[in-house]
Amino acid sequence: MNVAVAQSGGPTGVINASLLGVYKQALQWPQVEKVYGFLYGIEGILQDRPVVLNDLLDTPQKQEILRQTPSAALRSCRYKLPCADEDVTVYERIRNTLDRYGIEAFFYIGGNDSMDTVDKLSAYLRSVGSSIRVMGVPKTIDNDLVCTDHTPGYGSAAKFVATSMAEIIRDCTVYDLDSVTIVEIMGRDTGWLTAAAALPRLTGETAPHLIYLPEVPFSVSSFVDDVRRVQKKSRTVVVAVSEGVCVDTEDSYQSGKTDTFGHRYLSGIGKYLEQVVQREIGCKVRSVELNILQRCAAHILSLTDVQEAQRAGAAAVDAAMNGMTGGVVIFKRTDTPSYSVEMDAVPVSSVANRIKYVPREWMNESGNDILTIALEYIRPLVIGELPIRMADGMPEHFCIQSCDR
Amino acid sequence: MNVAVAQSGGPTGVINASLLGVYKQALQWPQVEKVYGFLYGIEGILQDRPVVLNDLLDTPQKQEILRQTPSAALRSCRYKLPCADEDVTVYERIRNTLDRYGIEAFFYIGGNDSMDTVDKLSAYLRSVGSSIRVMGVPKTIDNDLVCTDHTPGYGSAAKFVATSMAEIIRDCTVYDLDSVTIVEIMGRDTGWLTAAAALPRLTGETAPHLIYLPEVPFSVSSFVDDVRRVQKKSRTVVVAVSEGVCVDTEDSYQSGKTDTFGHRYLSGIGKYLEQVVQREIGCKVRSVELNILQRCAAHILSLTDVQEAQRAGAAAVDAAMNGMTGGVVIFKRTDTPSYSVEMDAVPVSSVANRIKYVPREWMNESGNDILTIALEYIRPLVIGELPIRMADGMPEHFCIQSCDR
Repeated sequence: MNVAVAQSGGPTGVINASLLGVYKQALQWPQVEKVYGFLYGIEGILQDRPVVLNDLLDTPQKQEILRQTPSAALRSCRYKLPCADEDVTVYERIRNTLDRYGIEAFFYIGGNDSMDTVDKLSAYLRSVGSSIRVMGVPKTIDNDLVCTDHTPGYGSAAKFVATSMAEIIRDCTVYDLDSVTIVEIMGRDTGWLTAAAALPRLTGETAPHLIYLPEVPFSVSSFVDDVRRVQKKSRTVVVAVSEGVCVDTEDSYQSGKTDTFGHRYLSGIGKYLEQVVQREIGCKVRSVELNILQRCAAHILSLTDVQEAQRAGAAAVDAAMNGMTGGVVIFKRTDTPSYSVEMDAVPVSSVANRIKYVPREWMNESGNDILTIALEYIRPLVIGELPIRMADGMPEHFCIQSCDR
Repeated sequence: MNVAVAQSGGPTGVINASLLGVYKQALQWPQVEKVYGFLYGIEGILQDRPVVLNDLLDTPQKQEILRQTPSAALRSCRYKLPCADEDVTVYERIRNTLDRYGIEAFFYIGGNDSMDTVDKLSAYLRSVGSSIRVMGVPKTIDNDLVCTDHTPGYGSAAKFVATSMAEIIRDCTVYDLDSVTIVEIMGRDTGWLTAAAALPRLTGETAPHLIYLPEVPFSVSSFVDDVRRVQKKSRTVVVAVSEGVCVDTEDSYQSGKTDTFGHRYLSGIGKYLEQVVQREIGCKVRSVELNILQRCAAHILSLTDVQEAQRAGAAAVDAAMNGMTGGVVIFKRTDTPSYSVEMDAVPVSSVANRIKYVPREWMNESGNDILTIALEYIRPLVIGELPIRMADGMPEHFCIQSCDR
């Protein structure tokens, strides 16, 4: 028998560690012969674009380079499956392709939206009596998946955010003048990644002084009051703000466009607040958008995250080989005596299309800071560094093919 | 006798390696007792804000942490000395403070503007018969100092730019659709740092496909033509553009404000070109501003840069102890049999207030790309990684005091 794997959704730093986990664990099962990868996610199955991972990953060196490569080595898509009762032909094409390659298990590494695909595809295959198993391997820097302690990808993004925040704090405290620095952090609906900006407090920093998550309504006038209050104690004010905060203003700084899943493309809260500070307070002000480096800065991966991502891929294989379909791997945390996670798998229907928010009680009453309990939750996820293979002063990357026309 | 050191100008990742170099080398000279640091650059001398580095750096561990800390540990300023014949009182105050602490040599670690201070102050001290020596230790991520092969700080910034560019290339090639990604890179007047964005070519990347430096006039319509031409071969187009390119358009995307030295604050060429692509081409487009992380991302320092920065500090001490004043350390490169640099010192008047540009012949004829000769120049400067001491998953930082009021 053969198995297949594909990747979907926005990149992370460890989505390829999960790919490696699927590949290596699949070959632990004697009955598995080939591990196919499909390029460009589920679209690659529809377009019949397979690669044979047994060939591409045939040395430990290639596997190591794959593991340290950010973003989906098999490329990605944002394709949303129609409902099977609306358009069954798509499902039939997918089944035919999988059958043609002798694929009996398909692993989809992706975020919230990809789990919707796992849910629909596994349900269809069951309904037509196919024995092909479909399992989801979660990944998202957003950490907004329910039923799991955290998601692969989050720890590395959090490590980059925390490290960058500490460096920005160093940078913006050099001058002896009043200044405000606003750091805009990814997180469309949830503040998990923005909360990680507070990790430098563990090492004694007082900054960032203000932290705003999408979980709490954002008032521009309260923000200005907050900054003025901090300025009475500190000439340097550092603010961490989620891209997804909902602003109580008529200013149209958001583009309002939406992607295939109906999500709004966001940009500009940092620049917007920079203008607000300029206008209302008038001191030196700068905004920094950490931008896509948050999800692709694989030169500073969390070793914990890498190892867990690889284990998640392996756990999905074992679950499928033991007969499970329509499931997704989740993490259960133990903190006693020390941090560890156990892998488990649950029906994907229990996680698909749902969002896990930062608990309100992890924030302070004013909603402009997070509490120690949040730092205790995040800290173990950013620990450790993956040793990186370098070439010409840069991390080596695994690249399957060019995307030239 | 005692000596003193201060830091000035914009932060870099290795300005503290130079500080460590000054400190350690000064103590190699038996006659040196105390090494003072003045906080906030030359302003710290005027305001009498010394610290005693012998106390603050009394263990190898503290020295290691200092060396890996970005941004000026002694803080910085952008204070511009008046001409001595306009206002001699400032110079008298500086001399009185130095004399009061028994300081016979003062080291100023800074960029182009700081060398102006070294020039003026040393000339004044000579003119009044003071034996106090003043030496400059160069630092600037911009690499725009004349008379030296390169500047401390450039290699680490270039390494971050090159690594980030490679990661951004991974990130933006995952989708099977036409896209343009514009990466805005620091460089007010010169394109040295933007040129480093091309380093991923050494490892086989074709991206970035277009590179624009301030050394060549920038035409918006040529830019659009360039992008369209690349799109015929590659669905993914990656552009590196210097913040300082001069745009041939009436659009007022630049704020036009100036700092103390008459430099314009720039921002927004990336966002501006994003809008141009949106309007003229209409495909998916994104701009990424690498922003201040370029100068403070000390978690990925170039070991070559760190070692050279430390040696530059040491060389300034030796030059001063051997009687030189009004000098600045420069680097001479040998490429045979392999890359190495020798330290030398030249009169600061020969480097102050001058700018070194990327040679026009290092760019292609169209002025939208750089040539292999530039990569050969940059490559050795980004090689090697400093092992980083971590705490709680983040690099440890050296911090002298808070800037709370």
